[in-house]
Amino acid sequence: MLELRLVQGSLLKKVMESIKELVTDANFDCSATGFSLQAMDSSHVALVSLLLRSEGFEHYRCDRNLSMGMNLNNMSKMLKCAGNDDIITIKADDGSDTVTFMFESPTQDKIADFEMKLMDIDSEHLGIPEAEYHAIVRMPSSEFARICKDLSSIGDTGDQKNEKLLDRLLLAVVISVTKEGVKFSTRGDIGTANVVCRQNTTVDKPEEATIIEMNEPVSLTFALRYMNSFTKASPLSSTVTISLSSELPVVVEYKIAEMGYVRFYLAPKIEEDEEDNKS
Amino acid sequence: MLELRLVQGSLLKKVMESIKELVTDANFDCSATGFSLQAMDSSHVALVSLLLRSEGFEHYRCDRNLSMGMNLNNMSKMLKCAGNDDIITIKADDGSDTVTFMFESPTQDKIADFEMKLMDIDSEHLGIPEAEYHAIVRMPSSEFARICKDLSSIGDTGDQKNEKLLDRLLLAVVISVTKEGVKFSTRGDIGTANVVCRQNTTVDKPEEATIIEMNEPVSLTFALRYMNSFTKASPLSSTVTISLSSELPVVVEYKIAEMGYVRFYLAPKIEEDEEDNKS
Amino acid sequence: MLELRLVQGSLLKKVMESIKELVTDANFDCSATGFSLQAMDSSHVALVSLLLRSEGFEHYRCDRNLSMGMNLNNMSKMLKCAGNDDIITIKADDGSDTVTFMFESPTQDKIADFEMKLMDIDSEHLGIPEAEYHAIVRMPSSEFARICKDLSSIGDTGDQKNEKLLDRLLLAVVISVTKEGVKFSTRGDIGTANVVCRQNTTVDKPEEATIIEMNEPVSLTFALRYMNSFTKASPLSSTVTISLSSELPVVVEYKIAEMGYVRFYLAPKIEEDEEDNKS
Repeated sequence: MLELRLVQGSLLKKVMESIKELVTDANFDCSATGFSLQAMDSSHVALVSLLLRSEGFEHYRCDRNLSMGMNLNNMSKMLKCAGNDDIITIKADDGSDTVTFMFESPTQDKIADFEMKLMDIDSEHLGIPEAEYHAIVRMPSSEFARICKDLSSIGDTGDQKNEKLLDRLLLAVVISVTKEGVKFSTRGDIGTANVVCRQNTTVDKPEEATIIEMNEPVSLTFALRYMNSFTKASPLSSTVTISLSSELPVVVEYKIAEMGYVRFYLAPKIEEDEEDNKS
Repeated sequence: MLELRLVQGSLLKKVMESIKELVTDANFDCSATGFSLQAMDSSHVALVSLLLRSEGFEHYRCDRNLSMGMNLNNMSKMLKCAGNDDIITIKADDGSDTVTFMFESPTQDKIADFEMKLMDIDSEHLGIPEAEYHAIVRMPSSEFARICKDLSSIGDTGDQKNEKLLDRLLLAVVISVTKEGVKFSTRGDIGTANVVCRQNTTVDKPEEATIIEMNEPVSLTFALRYMNSFTKASPLSSTVTISLSSELPVVVEYKIAEMGYVRFYLAPKIEEDEEDNKS
Repeated sequence: MLELRLVQGSLLKKVMESIKELVTDANFDCSATGFSLQAMDSSHVALVSLLLRSEGFEHYRCDRNLSMGMNLNNMSKMLKCAGNDDIITIKADDGSDTVTFMFESPTQDKIADFEMKLMDIDSEHLGIPEAEYHAIVRMPSSEFARICKDLSSIGDTGDQKNEKLLDRLLLAVVISVTKEGVKFSTRGDIGTANVVCRQNTTVDKPEEATIIEMNEPVSLTFALRYMNSFTKASPLSSTVTISLSSELPVVVEYKIAEMGYVRFYLAPKIEEDEEDNKS
């Protein structure tokens, strides 16, 4: 039997909003240590990894390891029915092919339960080795989201023809890190754009700092639209951490206070593309 | 001659917004007692009944009974041009085929008049007998609206195929009342949902109470989309009253402070449907 | 070399939003006196005239007169990437075919530069003679915008047929000025509307006044949709000035505090149309 009671239910709502654009169907894995998910996006380019540790739940009962396949869009629809102050409990009986989400209002005057059919989903759990990164940038998540959105607008011609739409999908961002700061660059139909954020640790609030840990300078190219999808997780955390190495996928991480994280992995575009983009 | 002056003009704007989704064209009836409307929705399933008593108007002159056929969509467009603090006057000359809405700003610096052609609309006024109900639920109107919206999302597959859309239109809600509370249930493509609101009279503000008057338990099934349309009247009142009997249409009533009400009537689905829904 | 540094960058964003609906491509003219634009709308009915005087810039360097052809939609996209508190610098090298917009955050922690290709645009600068007007109305810009929007709704049948859409495009507004006030009238598919604003100088805040300077009464007819486009400039100024003469195009002016203005010119409809409209 599974019964996970999360007092801060709005957190689960935010988690769903952060990943449902990338992932359609996925297995949620429950074990004694926590509630987690690992899934590729539908075009098998980006990887999402979610962890909510058992300690973060008010009540956490998971008698045996369980993998529950869910349609994230439907799950999101159900979670949207929870009030922002509601307590959410996830329940499943052993051997059952359904999962139940229960929402309790803070005053206990309103109790809702939503039952959803589970799905059989093939998936393999990839081991993600710990790695050393050339550079790690920590910055306000809202700033990162704003930059990705702004750079995207450069590739947006407002033209509805398919080829233009394609251009937009292919729009790339170059992320370059030096000791002084991090630069985001793109080249689109209507021009070019560069945004530089300087290292800045002397701010009033620690979450407004831009902090750069760098072993060696790095410059990598990524598909901008994936970066934009990742920023859907911004409501989960006031800061985002971007870890870069020339041989590794970038890791874009949003920590979930006292519970875990949502991490997005994305392979850099190969050099050929990069040259095209710079020419 | 007709001249009805309503100081709280925003009220008339809210009335229009509450019924124009259900009713396209309707006769407004003016008599010495008040300004009223009774109309079936376009598919002749639900009935709307509006009353604004003459006492609620600052000035109310109605020399003889008058029935004015109006297109509610056009009337709504005109009333949207009134500011929220404007005084609204409805004017019609005897025998005229037009009606005039006059909007005065609180400072009297801006006066607008909008003139609209009247229509000939066939209609019969149904007598609605007073009835005894098995159960009467009074609850916050915002809560009722939220529940209807949430339950609808369960039938919303996001699928644009016609058959799916049909499913959504056919989505039913079962409303069951016991002494302990009222339960709203639905079964849709993506799962099932139950929302229970407990009787609760010990709240800080009386309009937040959920009060159940019950002679005998009752459980009835209704088309959810009509319930959703009725909740468009929520801005008119902080509470809604739902009156249920197994042999009668449900009455969903929004009182209009010191003036009258908007009432919606809807027949329950027959048992055959109910069984289908429960199976 | 050109380098114009504007501390209140949000102002340039507002200027773009105010004219990009009317004008697609236009030459911006830079000289020692200021940064200006004069352009006809795409159907050559309305004229836009913008002036930002050099004194309003923190730094203004313009070595020689320069005319820079820009696509306003693309320029607007770039300026939207500037934060509302950002300092905006417009830069162009002599003989270059590009222009650069630089955005500095107030803390200088984030610097963005957006480069856009310039275009060759044929245009002739029309001389606009100073004129005497029969009547000049100064009123709150939000009030004028609200009236134009409200009157438009009278012509909006919600009907998607082309002929109806045409009706809406042809919707006319009659502006009549007397000593007592200014009247805006229209006649559309669903009825007629008149809005009268009375002269009113005894208000708490000067920007809420409606002031009428009149040499002789005047009544002119204009295409309502152009008036609606002009009101996109409302965020630039809390007041608007409407100057009317029977032989001249109306001037709708939004002053830009301490820097200049955006002015819109529109010829009245000829009498034949006016008669049609009144009949």
